[in-house]
Amino acid sequence: MTRRALVHRVPTTGPNDVHGLAERIEGGEIDPAAIVAILGKTEGNGCVNDFTRGFAVQSLRAALAPHLPNPAALDAVSMVMSGGTEGGLSPHLLVMETRQSQDHGDGDRESLAIGVAHTPTMRPEQIGRIEQCEAVADAVRQAMDHASIGEPENVHYVQVKCPLLTASRVEDAAAQGCSVASTDTLKSMGLSRGAAALGVALALGEIDRGVLDEVAIGTPSNIFATRASCSAGVELMNNEIVVLGNSRHWTSDLVIGHAVMADAIDADAVYRALASIGLEADRQITPDQRGQAVAVLAKAEPDPSGSIRGARHTMLDDSDIAATRHARALVGGVLAGIVGHTELFVSGGAEHQGPPGGGPVAIIARA
Amino acid sequence: MTRRALVHRVPTTGPNDVHGLAERIEGGEIDPAAIVAILGKTEGNGCVNDFTRGFAVQSLRAALAPHLPNPAALDAVSMVMSGGTEGGLSPHLLVMETRQSQDHGDGDRESLAIGVAHTPTMRPEQIGRIEQCEAVADAVRQAMDHASIGEPENVHYVQVKCPLLTASRVEDAAAQGCSVASTDTLKSMGLSRGAAALGVALALGEIDRGVLDEVAIGTPSNIFATRASCSAGVELMNNEIVVLGNSRHWTSDLVIGHAVMADAIDADAVYRALASIGLEADRQITPDQRGQAVAVLAKAEPDPSGSIRGARHTMLDDSDIAATRHARALVGGVLAGIVGHTELFVSGGAEHQGPPGGGPVAIIARA
Amino acid sequence: MTRRALVHRVPTTGPNDVHGLAERIEGGEIDPAAIVAILGKTEGNGCVNDFTRGFAVQSLRAALAPHLPNPAALDAVSMVMSGGTEGGLSPHLLVMETRQSQDHGDGDRESLAIGVAHTPTMRPEQIGRIEQCEAVADAVRQAMDHASIGEPENVHYVQVKCPLLTASRVEDAAAQGCSVASTDTLKSMGLSRGAAALGVALALGEIDRGVLDEVAIGTPSNIFATRASCSAGVELMNNEIVVLGNSRHWTSDLVIGHAVMADAIDADAVYRALASIGLEADRQITPDQRGQAVAVLAKAEPDPSGSIRGARHTMLDDSDIAATRHARALVGGVLAGIVGHTELFVSGGAEHQGPPGGGPVAIIARA
Amino acid sequence: MTRRALVHRVPTTGPNDVHGLAERIEGGEIDPAAIVAILGKTEGNGCVNDFTRGFAVQSLRAALAPHLPNPAALDAVSMVMSGGTEGGLSPHLLVMETRQSQDHGDGDRESLAIGVAHTPTMRPEQIGRIEQCEAVADAVRQAMDHASIGEPENVHYVQVKCPLLTASRVEDAAAQGCSVASTDTLKSMGLSRGAAALGVALALGEIDRGVLDEVAIGTPSNIFATRASCSAGVELMNNEIVVLGNSRHWTSDLVIGHAVMADAIDADAVYRALASIGLEADRQITPDQRGQAVAVLAKAEPDPSGSIRGARHTMLDDSDIAATRHARALVGGVLAGIVGHTELFVSGGAEHQGPPGGGPVAIIARA
Repeated sequence: MTRRALVHRVPTTGPNDVHGLAERIEGGEIDPAAIVAILGKTEGNGCVNDFTRGFAVQSLRAALAPHLPNPAALDAVSMVMSGGTEGGLSPHLLVMETRQSQDHGDGDRESLAIGVAHTPTMRPEQIGRIEQCEAVADAVRQAMDHASIGEPENVHYVQVKCPLLTASRVEDAAAQGCSVASTDTLKSMGLSRGAAALGVALALGEIDRGVLDEVAIGTPSNIFATRASCSAGVELMNNEIVVLGNSRHWTSDLVIGHAVMADAIDADAVYRALASIGLEADRQITPDQRGQAVAVLAKAEPDPSGSIRGARHTMLDDSDIAATRHARALVGGVLAGIVGHTELFVSGGAEHQGPPGGGPVAIIARA
Repeated sequence: MTRRALVHRVPTTGPNDVHGLAERIEGGEIDPAAIVAILGKTEGNGCVNDFTRGFAVQSLRAALAPHLPNPAALDAVSMVMSGGTEGGLSPHLLVMETRQSQDHGDGDRESLAIGVAHTPTMRPEQIGRIEQCEAVADAVRQAMDHASIGEPENVHYVQVKCPLLTASRVEDAAAQGCSVASTDTLKSMGLSRGAAALGVALALGEIDRGVLDEVAIGTPSNIFATRASCSAGVELMNNEIVVLGNSRHWTSDLVIGHAVMADAIDADAVYRALASIGLEADRQITPDQRGQAVAVLAKAEPDPSGSIRGARHTMLDDSDIAATRHARALVGGVLAGIVGHTELFVSGGAEHQGPPGGGPVAIIARA
Repeated sequence: MTRRALVHRVPTTGPNDVHGLAERIEGGEIDPAAIVAILGKTEGNGCVNDFTRGFAVQSLRAALAPHLPNPAALDAVSMVMSGGTEGGLSPHLLVMETRQSQDHGDGDRESLAIGVAHTPTMRPEQIGRIEQCEAVADAVRQAMDHASIGEPENVHYVQVKCPLLTASRVEDAAAQGCSVASTDTLKSMGLSRGAAALGVALALGEIDRGVLDEVAIGTPSNIFATRASCSAGVELMNNEIVVLGNSRHWTSDLVIGHAVMADAIDADAVYRALASIGLEADRQITPDQRGQAVAVLAKAEPDPSGSIRGARHTMLDDSDIAATRHARALVGGVLAGIVGHTELFVSGGAEHQGPPGGGPVAIIARA
Repeated sequence: MTRRALVHRVPTTGPNDVHGLAERIEGGEIDPAAIVAILGKTEGNGCVNDFTRGFAVQSLRAALAPHLPNPAALDAVSMVMSGGTEGGLSPHLLVMETRQSQDHGDGDRESLAIGVAHTPTMRPEQIGRIEQCEAVADAVRQAMDHASIGEPENVHYVQVKCPLLTASRVEDAAAQGCSVASTDTLKSMGLSRGAAALGVALALGEIDRGVLDEVAIGTPSNIFATRASCSAGVELMNNEIVVLGNSRHWTSDLVIGHAVMADAIDADAVYRALASIGLEADRQITPDQRGQAVAVLAKAEPDPSGSIRGARHTMLDDSDIAATRHARALVGGVLAGIVGHTELFVSGGAEHQGPPGGGPVAIIARA
């Protein structure tokens, strides 16, 4: 008996819209007990005062609770909401299931595999520091084991939900005589994302442990993970890991591939990611291919150099619209031009997640 | 002796940055006396309180004045600033010159041709109405004559700078016993753009005069011009027309082509426009081709249906960021993914300029 | 046996923060079964895509449900969330209780009285029209009866939660062969608020029924209610009414008074409202008086003339910040300067609720 | 012969509107040769990408140039534009003149005195540091001399226009082997304002020189100037000082007073400032008094504690509207409620200018 991964892309009409999920559960398409993770794009600003993420999670939990045996089962579902549907991005959920399968597969073909794990609870003074990197690295390895993915090269996307510092957490650390990586709580989000990404890079063998002693965590750098997507949330003090890769031990018609965009308009990387999973394309992919491409996940950030291929951008100087909002809109446009639709999971805050101004793009497709 | 059109793409560091223009004038690259039009992207919000457009025009006029014989020569330069560099769009100027050429051309080859004209001064009650359509149509025909473009199919881009209503203009009309198309001054901008676009469609034979009696000007419609780009400005009461096309009577290595994007993510239209002028491409154009593509001009608007290919967008419900800003970011991303850079003249407000949610894209390239 | 009204002002740390409410219920300070209405300020934009209101209501309902006998009891609590805490406005809840009291009062002294009622369900084509005015007027009279307030002059604040049109409601009407007041759903919010306010004015004898045949509902006008505060919500199709006034049939140390601000900076009206309930003050009220003033409720809107006492304001031309956001910030500042704190229920959208650019202010105080 | 100070409050219809100034020059009301400073509120966002300030200065310079003998005379006019007219703030100019007067005054009465001075050019590494404090302190003393104000207590408002760091200035410093106070250019604005304010405090005897060795420049602190208003601009590398105070050596019907607002809603401070110059008032000042109060100048900032008198504000967590914009709206509302109009010079960025969350307010009135 093997496992089978399912990914459902469910459009939403608002942050609290769960009717699509409910319908699919009612119709038998989704087995609520099999859900391991829900990623979602919600239509807030994706910044500090974005309450659409919490509203979505509260709504999803209320929708799932009646279908699950206990609160622990509910808590075990990793819910990662990414705020910000700038440009044409379309709010939607990616509901990921792991089911047992009678089908043993053909033993050779690799299919989408999902592994989850979490780190121990962090102390405030560990956030954004090497301790967090190492804890995340350990958990990524566990999640790979959980997914029966042996080789790092078979990992194509690692979602990390990581903690951040709040005023009271900073005080807790101080009460213990500990200093924290930053007393600026907004900045702590970037530090935590950066540390988590470096942990992913470490687990996947992209960097050596020694590098961590040298790198300035959270500063634009050529030291980065190629398959990490990290998101900081106030509601947890550990790190939740969802690893997506391909494995012979799983069986389904889904596979995942990825590439790294060197900058925000690196279309060729997107074509490479598509081709890596059998979606060879010139120009925009065909409607048939569009039907095959179940999920597109990418990271976006304003180029810290202030320009893209030498042409000035205005994201970083814009006091009306946050820079990450511009970046998501831009990358969303580049991707939509290629994949032909706008239900794309483009999230911001890409510290050590791809090169400065660029970021990873992963695609899950039906074979 | 024939004419020769030159187009210079000049990056700017701010709305009042004219040093790039000044350097090119000083270096002999630009002949100020030959400038017929300057189109520019500036980094304001592109909406009502966008003062970057006026700041840019004031700065450009101050920079050009010393080089021109008299104020009338300065006024003859059509300056169209489009605010809004959302996503990755990069502020820049497109400086267009018409020079006399000793080169007679080979008589067969078509080159970029530029024609300018303007309508008589409109009365407030004519704005956004059939009278404006007809006046613009006449002026487009004059500009075609001026450019020696005989056939409408050789026209690929018509920039119209059109008037709008202000409170005092509405009062002037009322004092004459006349009602205006709208007392809402913001709405009058859309009505004026729409009427101007329909005038272009009329001049280019895309619609019959009778259609104007039927169409609801300014309302999303399948009655549209395929090559119009209209922009309303408070500083004029007539309509300024710049027609760009190809003509055997001009000689240069520049040509222009266009296509109509059916929606905001219609990448295939962009590839068609490129191919029409010899830039055949799959995926992103090559760096060499990028060097050839001097200017990319497109119109963007939020799809009035509320969705793009069936996927909901959030532009129209966003009370923090104006819908046109989202639309420019999106179309800018789609275009940048194909042409490989971000110095793109993407402007908003596309009433009757392409189909609802879509719009024309024109490209000027070196052969 | 008489009734007793209680009003609790509860600060919140976010839209979903119900711990203050829960603590007061647990501590016996609030009786959940006695709650008739909860008004709240939440920190969204107060415009179309403000999800903080729905998030707050969902959170409040989840917090109250375990304390109430059935869903109907929960539905009977009128919850009116007003988004937007611009300037210094502080997010908070006003929890209003009606309890039975053994105290018969002294028969002469008037105390705060609360009455609730609701109209029948509206058909889409009735929204924003005279039918809505009349239905609201009837319900206001019922709520006055419910509150045992005989005379209109004893009414000082009428909160109306009213419906709005959505695309599907417009379609429903069309399917019945009916046209609606506006197909623009945003505009329908103003029309509904305006019609509701005129209904209040009718019930309180401020206008005659005949006036409704003349007035352009929703257009700035000198026909207005002096004690209405209307808020449109997508979640209902009837109108919920909460009337606050003073009555001899109630007993408590709370009273309510009001005045009408002639414009956004009409401080004298605020002093008059304070004086009407025994809080005589020059300059900022004293800390003692501040402790007495339990709730301050006001309406704010951008002056439609474009200026305040002849000085231009920029609210209406600002495409970055919605005009209602500016208006709330301004009125919040004027009020805070007088009452010495920022937990103020200032809401926007004041069609026919006070004169153009002004609005009612009501104050509930401990005697 | 004595000097006479004139202050003209001139409303504007936009950042480039100079017709009010031109009319007053033409009508003889303003003598352009006597203008020493122009302070203005413009309707941008008051943050990084606020181009309304530069547009206003460019427009004012173009308007004044024909009236002045040479470019140096134009450069000698200190122009300080403050962006941001949130809430109800109304765009306007305060044009300050110094004229020679035949009137010798009565020798006893003090009148408004204006003194100007500037520091030497700063090196990048001096900005935001003690060197800047000391240079500003020296210049303030010079400006007091220039204004014949002997005693620090007669100084009521010191406007400083100070420099900031840019990427190229940081590089210049690095090329000299020098480090700068911050490589973050936005942060350098706050550091420069803070250092300038401390320089004012030093000159006015509010702090000892030794304090500068202890204080963390730019960090919220109880070490502050009570009469400084500092604004950073990219166009200068020295500090321009305008000192306003009262002096027996000047004669006019104008006087200036000030007070320090302890927080953003400290109305009592405003009443004290009014009373100090003879405008005793309760509630809102009378229309007559309003006519006397020629100019109101105040500093606003979001309370760094996150609350105002214990009530949470949301300014610092708002990723849609910059915190300084909220703060200006709030303080503008408090002031407008008292002085009865909205043409108020409220500017943001109050590092060491009044206590954290508060700031100075100065009022110029006709006796």
